[in-house]
Amino acid sequence: MSLDAYKIRQDFAILDQIVNDEPLVYLDNAATTQKPQVVLDTLMAYYHEDNANVHRGVHTLAERATAKYEASREKVRAFINAHSTKEVLFTRGTTTGLNWVAKFAEQVLSQDDEVLISVMEHHSNIIPWQEACRKTGAKLVYAYLKDGQLDMDDLTAKLSDKTKFVSLAQVSNVLGCVNPVKEIAELAHAKGAYMVVDGAQSAPHMTIDVQDLDCDFFTLSGHKMLAPTGIGVLYGKEEVLNLMNPVEFGGEMIDFVYEQEATWKELPWKFEAGTPNIAGAIALGAAVDYLTEIGMDVIHAYEQELVDYVLPKLQAIDGLTVYGPSDPSQHAGVIAFNIDGLHPHDVATALDYEGVAVRAGHHCAQPLINHLGISSAARASFYIYNTKEDCDKLVEAIIKTKEFFNGTL
Amino acid sequence: MSLDAYKIRQDFAILDQIVNDEPLVYLDNAATTQKPQVVLDTLMAYYHEDNANVHRGVHTLAERATAKYEASREKVRAFINAHSTKEVLFTRGTTTGLNWVAKFAEQVLSQDDEVLISVMEHHSNIIPWQEACRKTGAKLVYAYLKDGQLDMDDLTAKLSDKTKFVSLAQVSNVLGCVNPVKEIAELAHAKGAYMVVDGAQSAPHMTIDVQDLDCDFFTLSGHKMLAPTGIGVLYGKEEVLNLMNPVEFGGEMIDFVYEQEATWKELPWKFEAGTPNIAGAIALGAAVDYLTEIGMDVIHAYEQELVDYVLPKLQAIDGLTVYGPSDPSQHAGVIAFNIDGLHPHDVATALDYEGVAVRAGHHCAQPLINHLGISSAARASFYIYNTKEDCDKLVEAIIKTKEFFNGTL
Repeated sequence: MSLDAYKIRQDFAILDQIVNDEPLVYLDNAATTQKPQVVLDTLMAYYHEDNANVHRGVHTLAERATAKYEASREKVRAFINAHSTKEVLFTRGTTTGLNWVAKFAEQVLSQDDEVLISVMEHHSNIIPWQEACRKTGAKLVYAYLKDGQLDMDDLTAKLSDKTKFVSLAQVSNVLGCVNPVKEIAELAHAKGAYMVVDGAQSAPHMTIDVQDLDCDFFTLSGHKMLAPTGIGVLYGKEEVLNLMNPVEFGGEMIDFVYEQEATWKELPWKFEAGTPNIAGAIALGAAVDYLTEIGMDVIHAYEQELVDYVLPKLQAIDGLTVYGPSDPSQHAGVIAFNIDGLHPHDVATALDYEGVAVRAGHHCAQPLINHLGISSAARASFYIYNTKEDCDKLVEAIIKTKEFFNGTL
Repeated sequence: MSLDAYKIRQDFAILDQIVNDEPLVYLDNAATTQKPQVVLDTLMAYYHEDNANVHRGVHTLAERATAKYEASREKVRAFINAHSTKEVLFTRGTTTGLNWVAKFAEQVLSQDDEVLISVMEHHSNIIPWQEACRKTGAKLVYAYLKDGQLDMDDLTAKLSDKTKFVSLAQVSNVLGCVNPVKEIAELAHAKGAYMVVDGAQSAPHMTIDVQDLDCDFFTLSGHKMLAPTGIGVLYGKEEVLNLMNPVEFGGEMIDFVYEQEATWKELPWKFEAGTPNIAGAIALGAAVDYLTEIGMDVIHAYEQELVDYVLPKLQAIDGLTVYGPSDPSQHAGVIAFNIDGLHPHDVATALDYEGVAVRAGHHCAQPLINHLGISSAARASFYIYNTKEDCDKLVEAIIKTKEFFNGTL
């Protein structure tokens, strides 16, 4: 079964707009995705009918809001196949999730311990570890690249009994490569290390089964998978979350508060201090329903079809460098590139004149960008509402941009 | 000029509903407020027209989203009269804001230092300080009550050169008393302590001028002042925020990231790691516009009018105890009470049968509840869309509840 992107587009009113006299071609999905009407309708229905604070109230609205909030947690649990809703913590997004895990690392790490990440990580999967290592004296170790992908030999060589955490993106937000996190989890566990998966760029695009991956932590951002901004999920194995101290303190996460000490609620609420993003969590549930109805395998196959179509066309453009795996079958729908002699910001600006929205910069991955020997790159990233026409428009706009700057247009 | 609550109610579709065969009377505003249509329309317009990630993009949507996000920061700045937008940090809510301040306290505090709070504080203004004190060896000191309000003599006596932070709610979410935080800030500063104001229950209800209060920090929650869930603000004086380390690490808050270290952006972005709640922040701007158009002084006067009306009626009910100041002129629009012989949860459930939504429990203030010698309380809390009819309905429903449980109905 395939996916009908034209039918899907009807759910995304924002795509039907003119930008700089051209129809919008939105190819900045790795930064954030658009929201289908059913997600927005869910938000509105919540605010028009049920809005109340959760868990604390006995009145009707509070009970309805609480039921919907917790139902959304169950939807997320099923989406990632967690064992229990106790393992599903609502956060602000992947950044918060990774910061919480790195805070747990401060409990675990001591001098001579190591944390192993890769040079392709997003800043949110680097700086929290720098901080944890700075505070504990542990060492932050990097695995590097081979052929535009993670060098598994390098990673394996750097894994040792000293390694206490391995933390990797499942899909790189620049290289578009897919890291074998299931295999790496097995290697990590064999050394007694925790496995952390940054799923920001994978959860929106492929089936996630945290039990099959056997990772200890998995993070995702709602806004990158059709949900509102300000909501995300940190999955953690129940036995690990039980070892982990709460990171934020306040209402809702406590059993008893005395003047000088307090005790914590059970999972998952131990980690959810204060009023959560109730509407965001409920709308995330609607996004999960929408994705599930299409089917994550269908989504993955469709995006692969787009990459199979567009990547060779991009590679064929003279003077254009694509980063990451050159084989389309190994490249997810996030494609970073540069054009000889042109600054990527100028490229992105020129593409915007053609209605094509791409991103340019370091993509919150400066160590990778430095490692690649460049200062920045442009990036086109695809989702379920993008079409082959969008791919053609991107390729045409790039060629036009090149010709314009080369003075041949 | 007065406020027309009936006109305002037209902006809140949710209030026009039947709960248990009775028209809804929503009196749980201290927990969360409802949202006017203009705030919801702002959310929808953002998702229908502008949605993109902020700060990182050069394309049209990203520029529009960034401009609106930063315009909202300016609206909040004006709302609280901060000196500069550098002092306005977007957070998930008051809980996050207070946790960040307590993290800063860990930088500052050492053994023999003291943190001074009051026994009426919300858990979010207690537990973060317990943690900061536990980690630094500092002492958490409580000021107690007199006549249902903060005992200023006790507070003053407990302020000393050892005090490094004074952190107080401006309005108690249980007692409804208004603490003289401006006067206390002066006393705190005279001792060299930082002044932190928990504005969760004040910012929605009265004019806030952080320069006049001269507090070092001020926190608020969007969802308690007509904005969506998942967005809040931490104000900090620029010179203090410059001393403060970031609490979350990731994209957007950095200048340069090397493999082993990173440098931070300038204020306010140094504190905003990862994709923020963009839509929430923009909608908070719309809420601020809505409140400003009515006028915070008008709102305050109107709520006072409601309290002047309802508090004596409640006090006149035989066997009903109201907590906090008995003088209506000293009581904000949050009224906690108990009825002799009845459990507050039963009271709240019975009121819900009458369509009246109130909260029951410890209101995230267990030390206060213990101090009052009770195990919980019911609480009615008012906002701009509540009317004297709502007050009457509350009083009637309480009397009916009392009669029902006393077997006289």
